[in-house]
Amino acid sequence: MLLAKIRGTLVSSQKVESLEGLKFFVCEQLDISGKPLGKYIVAADSVGAGVGEVVLYVTGSCGRYTAATADRPCDATIMAIVDTLEVDGRAVYEKSTDTGT
Amino acid sequence: MLLAKIRGTLVSSQKVESLEGLKFFVCEQLDISGKPLGKYIVAADSVGAGVGEVVLYVTGSCGRYTAATADRPCDATIMAIVDTLEVDGRAVYEKSTDTGT
Amino acid sequence: MLLAKIRGTLVSSQKVESLEGLKFFVCEQLDISGKPLGKYIVAADSVGAGVGEVVLYVTGSCGRYTAATADRPCDATIMAIVDTLEVDGRAVYEKSTDTGT
Amino acid sequence: MLLAKIRGTLVSSQKVESLEGLKFFVCEQLDISGKPLGKYIVAADSVGAGVGEVVLYVTGSCGRYTAATADRPCDATIMAIVDTLEVDGRAVYEKSTDTGT
Amino acid sequence: MLLAKIRGTLVSSQKVESLEGLKFFVCEQLDISGKPLGKYIVAADSVGAGVGEVVLYVTGSCGRYTAATADRPCDATIMAIVDTLEVDGRAVYEKSTDTGT
Repeated sequence: MLLAKIRGTLVSSQKVESLEGLKFFVCEQLDISGKPLGKYIVAADSVGAGVGEVVLYVTGSCGRYTAATADRPCDATIMAIVDTLEVDGRAVYEKSTDTGT
Repeated sequence: MLLAKIRGTLVSSQKVESLEGLKFFVCEQLDISGKPLGKYIVAADSVGAGVGEVVLYVTGSCGRYTAATADRPCDATIMAIVDTLEVDGRAVYEKSTDTGT
Repeated sequence: MLLAKIRGTLVSSQKVESLEGLKFFVCEQLDISGKPLGKYIVAADSVGAGVGEVVLYVTGSCGRYTAATADRPCDATIMAIVDTLEVDGRAVYEKSTDTGT
Repeated sequence: MLLAKIRGTLVSSQKVESLEGLKFFVCEQLDISGKPLGKYIVAADSVGAGVGEVVLYVTGSCGRYTAATADRPCDATIMAIVDTLEVDGRAVYEKSTDTGT
Repeated sequence: MLLAKIRGTLVSSQKVESLEGLKFFVCEQLDISGKPLGKYIVAADSVGAGVGEVVLYVTGSCGRYTAATADRPCDATIMAIVDTLEVDGRAVYEKSTDTGT
């Protein structure tokens, strides 16, 4: 799993039927200090996330292993919103104090 | 899923039978500002896309999870044409105003 | 499989149901001399590992092939704690002499 | 799928049984202008390709989705020989005029 | 599939049960001229390989498609020992003349 911040949304009216009803987020990968890495991915949401949140996403076949994405062509799926990230004994991210900037 | 612009086509007469009838596009990956990244992939089409369009594609086993590519050796499949891409509250791509250049 | 040192933990209260009960570790990849590579991954634990330990983890669909992670959306899973790592005939890592620094 | 030029062959007498009878080619990845990228892969052949040819190959689980490689441990499989590659409206590769140099 | 030279071994007493009995090798990836690339992977053995040998390994789900690794969490598996590697008409590696240095 990788960390990301949701930066935006993607809308598509012409797509394969099995993707109907899914929400797609533009996500930027974060390193373990919470800094953006300049790498992005478009991920399907399975957990009710929103723009600006720090999330955990899976890639590959695991992207199909959530209730929302089962048997759908989703190779990247957000499956958790991060509350706290602690590295080397220090909290590097806490949702409760995240100003969203 | 990743963003790409369709740059061209690939034709092959000598291929495995299970690929008969599929259309293959040469795609260049885009970043979230819509700029080309210089990385390419050849993807099967499952959505009726065309050269010049900005699309969303999946890789890996998910490439087989569309009606067009089921159980075929497709590790990259276009499954959506992008209408709008919004990042940090701004529209960075809109199909309706895309001049195709 | 890749080598990593467990650097921290990740907590999420809002996640897909199938992840309930799993422990997530922030892991930094090591090279074969045991040096950190600056690349990280968040991995589910299936073996009772702890912060500071050197572990082996799998990625991709194999992340679902442990008792703890079966059919769950885990694309990175710790499945062994490293005792010894021997390269070119020399021990480059031994758990018994690891000071955890 | 990715483009490659077949640069050579690999022979192995001691291998898992399920690989018996497969032909392995050393392939160098090409970019969309047909230039070598300096990255290589060893791919199983499923289409009757030969050294010097420009081919399309799949990676990952799709490598097992051809008649020749079904249920075999092949994570890279050649499944098409390229006739023409057209990018931005120009033919960047044509098999009929390929001198093999 | 990728080429590698076996550089060492990894021992773990605390691991998931399904890995019992497997041998793990530390492998360094080689390019097609047989030179080390400085990238490593830990791979399970399915073919009776030994330290110093040049081997072929698979990654991803294919790692589970050998008799030794079936349904086990192995995302990298050695499934062939290389006898000869011929590139551009020249033998770049021959096991029979390999001095193991």
